[in-house]
Amino acid sequence: MRALVYDGEALRLREDYPQPVPPPGEALVRVRLAGICNTDLEIVRGYMGFQGVLGHEFVGTVVECADGTAAPSLVGRRVVGEINAYCGECPTCRAGRPTHCPNRTTLGIWGRDGAFAEYLTLPARNLYPVPDGLPDEAAVFTEPLAAALEILEQVHIRPTDRVVVLGDGKLGLLVAQVVALLGCDLVVVGRHPEKLAILARRGVSTALAGETDGLVADVVVECTGRPEGFATAKRLLRPRGTLVLKSTYHGQVEADLTALVVDEISLVGSRCGPFPPALRLLQRGLVDVRPLISEIYPLSEGEKAFARAAEPGTLKVLLRVEEG
Amino acid sequence: MRALVYDGEALRLREDYPQPVPPPGEALVRVRLAGICNTDLEIVRGYMGFQGVLGHEFVGTVVECADGTAAPSLVGRRVVGEINAYCGECPTCRAGRPTHCPNRTTLGIWGRDGAFAEYLTLPARNLYPVPDGLPDEAAVFTEPLAAALEILEQVHIRPTDRVVVLGDGKLGLLVAQVVALLGCDLVVVGRHPEKLAILARRGVSTALAGETDGLVADVVVECTGRPEGFATAKRLLRPRGTLVLKSTYHGQVEADLTALVVDEISLVGSRCGPFPPALRLLQRGLVDVRPLISEIYPLSEGEKAFARAAEPGTLKVLLRVEEG
Repeated sequence: MRALVYDGEALRLREDYPQPVPPPGEALVRVRLAGICNTDLEIVRGYMGFQGVLGHEFVGTVVECADGTAAPSLVGRRVVGEINAYCGECPTCRAGRPTHCPNRTTLGIWGRDGAFAEYLTLPARNLYPVPDGLPDEAAVFTEPLAAALEILEQVHIRPTDRVVVLGDGKLGLLVAQVVALLGCDLVVVGRHPEKLAILARRGVSTALAGETDGLVADVVVECTGRPEGFATAKRLLRPRGTLVLKSTYHGQVEADLTALVVDEISLVGSRCGPFPPALRLLQRGLVDVRPLISEIYPLSEGEKAFARAAEPGTLKVLLRVEEG
Repeated sequence: MRALVYDGEALRLREDYPQPVPPPGEALVRVRLAGICNTDLEIVRGYMGFQGVLGHEFVGTVVECADGTAAPSLVGRRVVGEINAYCGECPTCRAGRPTHCPNRTTLGIWGRDGAFAEYLTLPARNLYPVPDGLPDEAAVFTEPLAAALEILEQVHIRPTDRVVVLGDGKLGLLVAQVVALLGCDLVVVGRHPEKLAILARRGVSTALAGETDGLVADVVVECTGRPEGFATAKRLLRPRGTLVLKSTYHGQVEADLTALVVDEISLVGSRCGPFPPALRLLQRGLVDVRPLISEIYPLSEGEKAFARAAEPGTLKVLLRVEEG
């Protein structure tokens, strides 16, 4: 099959990549549309040491399931998929934290080929049917939107809170739309007027990065992906405020941890989130992902799509895998 | 009056330091007994840029109050004192966070002379009477014990949690005693067998720093005061666990913030805490501070006392100010 593969040195489109065979409990999914995430760009720079088919944001159609368990009702259905394949039996899984399963593989990130290919496999229990009316171009955002919703799983943001979302990239724009639904006093701080304008058109307050004087927040969500974002987030936070860290950085960061103690800051690391509420928000039109799409390429132009995704100012680049 | 003063270069005992005059709302306190904290040792190395009388752990007797408000009932009483003198009128104070008041002064740490002197002043509202039966040698631990209790103000530690307290210094031993009261599965990790033995005698499980294989905690409280303690705490924590940071470090720390995101760790900085519950625990004998006292010096030997407090392996060094 056709697949976009990172071999540890370069990203290459391969025409002859072996089609995956689903092991017991897993489904074979024909990929329809997939999204390029910053994590994909980082993997090509060495993050996680992953080699194989990239991609973890997708919408596809279930083709078959090896042993039939749970899957018959899914065959032929359009689905999105939770990217962490967990064992279900270790203490971490039994404690209700399957996305942290120490035995997990992660689609296109860790130990499991991803979605930039004609086919992928995932455990049937990881798949969620996409509501009929929801177009692929919206459903493909389920995974990053779930990651944005993870913040609300972890932190109680009050309607009366002043919240700052730092960063106007793909993730920042999704986080901002989710937080804006809470009715809180939200300001999104970014460096790109044209990206901030997407939010401003929805009535969300925005500020350019250099223009934050006097801004003091109860909660700051760090989505810049830049190490200096951490210090900026701390600076914008009131004592005893909450700093939600969504950014992953290259290597170690020089951090003023003593300032976190003196000001009794709560820092919450936040990664993957719940799919069902993400699908509900998309279906009900409460989050608008259309303005976040910069361009759609066919999978055959995957290398070009990656180059485009890496350009400054680009938002989401999608890969159309199944034509028509 | 006699006072132990740090002038930005050295710590010196002065015989002629001016006796403080309490401003309106403040009380004049004759110091009876005071404790040397690691923060005092750090200030002498330049922390906070403080100059003046050191010391913030004390028990004393109220001598007078400038304007009489609130204080008449306190005159002649033995008291301990919350060290943060707040304005009471700014948004932070009104929001119920007076220890974070941006206009605050802090006894012996920031903008206010401290307790290693014959007299100090503090706002009358900062003072708490010491129960009659509680000896000075216990009451002098109210401030650091309150700092230990601040952890329980901030974090919900469950009886079923596995908790690790990292560090067997003065603060670690107090934190361990407080956490042990919750019935949780507690292990205190330290480097000094003789200090860990203080806890072991109370039935608390302990481990030497090199012997933590297989230890996985829901909550880790970092009390080592050493930058490498941060990475150790992270390593001992389960995914989605809570890292309580009590240590302050010199300067910036190289930290793996991405690991906090991937494992969705909550980090909670923790500083000063509530006095009334600390006094209750001391009075009811639920925390035993006697084995934490390494030595008591008269104020006249303050420089010697500091040298002793700085020696490795020393626990609390107290300064007797009022003789008899």
